[in-house]
Amino acid sequence: MPPRKKQPKAAPETEAREAIVGCAKDILEHIESQRKPTLKFPKRALSNVTYDAKEGYFKLKQGRITRTLTYNTVKTFAQTLRMMALSKEAIETDEEITKREAYYVSKNWGEARFDEQPESDTVMEDVEALFGVNREQLGFIPEEKGGEVAGELFVIDHDRITGESIEIDCTRFGSGAYSVPISVEELEFRTGASFILAIETAGMFQRLNNHSFWRTANCILVSMGGVPTRACRRFIRRLSEENKMPVYAFVDGDPYGYGNIYRTLKVGSGNAAHINRYFCVPDAQFLGVTPYDIEKYDLPTHPLAEIDIKRANDLIKNDPFFKHYKAWQKAIQKMLKMGVRVEQQAFAKHGLNMVMEKYLPDKLAATGKFLP
Amino acid sequence: MPPRKKQPKAAPETEAREAIVGCAKDILEHIESQRKPTLKFPKRALSNVTYDAKEGYFKLKQGRITRTLTYNTVKTFAQTLRMMALSKEAIETDEEITKREAYYVSKNWGEARFDEQPESDTVMEDVEALFGVNREQLGFIPEEKGGEVAGELFVIDHDRITGESIEIDCTRFGSGAYSVPISVEELEFRTGASFILAIETAGMFQRLNNHSFWRTANCILVSMGGVPTRACRRFIRRLSEENKMPVYAFVDGDPYGYGNIYRTLKVGSGNAAHINRYFCVPDAQFLGVTPYDIEKYDLPTHPLAEIDIKRANDLIKNDPFFKHYKAWQKAIQKMLKMGVRVEQQAFAKHGLNMVMEKYLPDKLAATGKFLP
Repeated sequence: MPPRKKQPKAAPETEAREAIVGCAKDILEHIESQRKPTLKFPKRALSNVTYDAKEGYFKLKQGRITRTLTYNTVKTFAQTLRMMALSKEAIETDEEITKREAYYVSKNWGEARFDEQPESDTVMEDVEALFGVNREQLGFIPEEKGGEVAGELFVIDHDRITGESIEIDCTRFGSGAYSVPISVEELEFRTGASFILAIETAGMFQRLNNHSFWRTANCILVSMGGVPTRACRRFIRRLSEENKMPVYAFVDGDPYGYGNIYRTLKVGSGNAAHINRYFCVPDAQFLGVTPYDIEKYDLPTHPLAEIDIKRANDLIKNDPFFKHYKAWQKAIQKMLKMGVRVEQQAFAKHGLNMVMEKYLPDKLAATGKFLP
Repeated sequence: MPPRKKQPKAAPETEAREAIVGCAKDILEHIESQRKPTLKFPKRALSNVTYDAKEGYFKLKQGRITRTLTYNTVKTFAQTLRMMALSKEAIETDEEITKREAYYVSKNWGEARFDEQPESDTVMEDVEALFGVNREQLGFIPEEKGGEVAGELFVIDHDRITGESIEIDCTRFGSGAYSVPISVEELEFRTGASFILAIETAGMFQRLNNHSFWRTANCILVSMGGVPTRACRRFIRRLSEENKMPVYAFVDGDPYGYGNIYRTLKVGSGNAAHINRYFCVPDAQFLGVTPYDIEKYDLPTHPLAEIDIKRANDLIKNDPFFKHYKAWQKAIQKMLKMGVRVEQQAFAKHGLNMVMEKYLPDKLAATGKFLP
C-alpha cells in the first residue's frame, strides 16, 4: 500500500476562536456602515460531495447557501450569532457543551431561544460548516459515547483537576475495556501494535477480548457497536494516522455493513461532509465478510429483505464511494444475485472459535486481496 | 433506611451443570420406562409477577407451562435439550456464547436447527427459567455491552491467558472510562466510595466525569446509556450489595425515565422475572428529576406527547411497582396535571455546571426525601 498524504490535522482551538471573532467583526462593520451582513454556508447534502480516492474521503463541492440579514431571517441570524458566542465562551473557559445542553442554554436567549432541539442542532452544524472546523474545536461535543478498546496500546490522558498525566494500559482490562471519551482531541498514544481491528458487534469484540486475540495478533481491538460514532471514528483515525497503522474493519456481509458501517468509517457521510476530513479513516480496509466468503467457508445466511435489496441497488447507483470501485460493484452484484446476507457470527456453525482460528488468520495473511 | 435482607447470591456454575445433568437423567428414565417426558417452565409475563417491597424485586408467581413430548412438540423439545447440552458444554469448557452465536451453532443440529434467532432466544430463556438460574451461569451472554464507569473504585479482574490478577483503577481514566464487560460474575471490587450515581445519558456522565465530580462527592459514576443492560444492572447490583453502598439513579423526569429506566434498574422487568433476583438493584433510590423540581429550579420543559400520557397512565394502573407506592402515584399524577416532562440536561439553562454546583448537592443532602 503506498503511503497516503497525511490528512490535515485539526486546527488548534485558538484558530477557531479567532475565526469567530473575525466573522463577528465583519458583521459589526457591515451593520455600522449600514450594509446588510451576510453569512455563507456550504450546502450540506450528498449531492454536494465528491469522492476522490487520493484524498480518501467525501469532500464538499462548491455549493454555498447565503444567509443575508433580513426581516425574515432575523431570528435564525441572531441564533447563529448567539451560537458563535456560546462557542467562543466554551473555548475561553475550556468547557465542553453537548448539543442538548446548547439547546437548553438557548432558553435564556429571549426571542432567539430555540423551540426544538433539531433547530439548534442545525444551527450548530451550520456554524461548524461556516468555519470549516469540527464541533469539538468549537467546544461542542456529541451526545453519544464511542467505542470500547482493548489491546496493545497505552492511551495518555490527564487528570482533569490535578493536570497530572495518566497512562492507561489497554492490555490490563481483563474481560473489560477502555471506553473512549466523547472528545478525543487531547489524547496521546503509545503502541507497538501492528494494526487496529474495528469490530461491528459488542458480542464479537467480547469473544476476541476474552481470548486475548489482541495478544496473539499483536493488535488493538475496537468495538464500534454498529455505525461508529464521531468519537470512535476520530479515535481510530488519530491512532492509526499518528502510528502509521493499518485499520481493518470486521463487519457483517450485508448492505448495512458495507454501506453504512464501513463506508461511514472510511470516507464519512454525505450530510456531515464539512467534517469528514477529521472524522473518517481513509486508510481503513475491508476485512469483513464478503459474498465470496459465504461459499469459501460454507456459512449459514439469511435471505436479503426488500430493504437490503433497495439499499444495495442504491449503493451501486448513487454512492460516490461504491461507484468509484469496480471490485465493490462486483461484490454487491454477487450478493444481489445470491440473494443472501451473512453475519460475522455465522462462523459459529463450525465451532465457536473458528473465527479466531481460521477466518481472521486467513484474512490477515492476505490483506492485499481485501475489497478496497 | 433499614438494612435489607441480603439478596441470594448467584449459584456457582457447577450447580447449573448438575441441574442440567439431573434434568437430562430424569428425561432419559422416562423414555426408558416408556413414559412421556415433560418439562415445566415458569410462565414469563407481567401477569405472572408480584411486587413485594421486602423482597425488593418483581417475583414470579406460580404460573407454569408444561411441555410434554408429543408429535407436535418434538422439535421444540429436541431444541430445548440441545440448548441444555450446549450450556453444559459451555460450562465445562469455560466458554461464553452469545445469543446470536447459539443460533448459528444450531445450524449444525440437523432437523433441530432454528430457522430464526427469536426462536433460539426463546428456548434459551426457557432454559434459564427452567433451572431458575441466570444466563451467565449457563455460559450464555447477552449481545450488548453495559455501562461505563469512573470514580473511586478498583475493579479486580484477571488476565485471560496468564491468569494473573489485574487491578483496574477507575480514578485513572482521564476523560475516558472503564467499560463493563458483558459478563461480570468474576469481577471483584475494592472501594471506599460513599455511593453509586447511575446516570441516564452519556452526555451527563461525560460532564460529571470531566469535572471529576466523583472526587468531590466521593462516589462512583456509572453511565447507563438509556435502559441499563443486564450486565450494567448486575454490575451495579454486585458492587452496591457487596460494599453496602447506596445507589442513586439520576434520570430524566418523564414516564420513560421513571417507568422504563428506573423501574427496570430497581425491580427488573416482567418478561424476565425469572432472573430479576440477580439483575435488579432493589436498593436503588430515585435522585432523578421530579415534577416538583421543575417548579423548584424553574426548569425548561417539553409538553407530554400522547405516548407519554399513555405510558404514565399505564404505570399508575398496571405496574405492580408504581401501584405499590402512593408517593410515586402522586408524582406521576402531578406530572400528568402539569402536562410536561423534563430532561436531566435542563439545568443548563441556569449555567452549564448548575447541575453539579446546586442540584446534585441539594439532593444528596436530603436523600431521605427521595421518591422510593
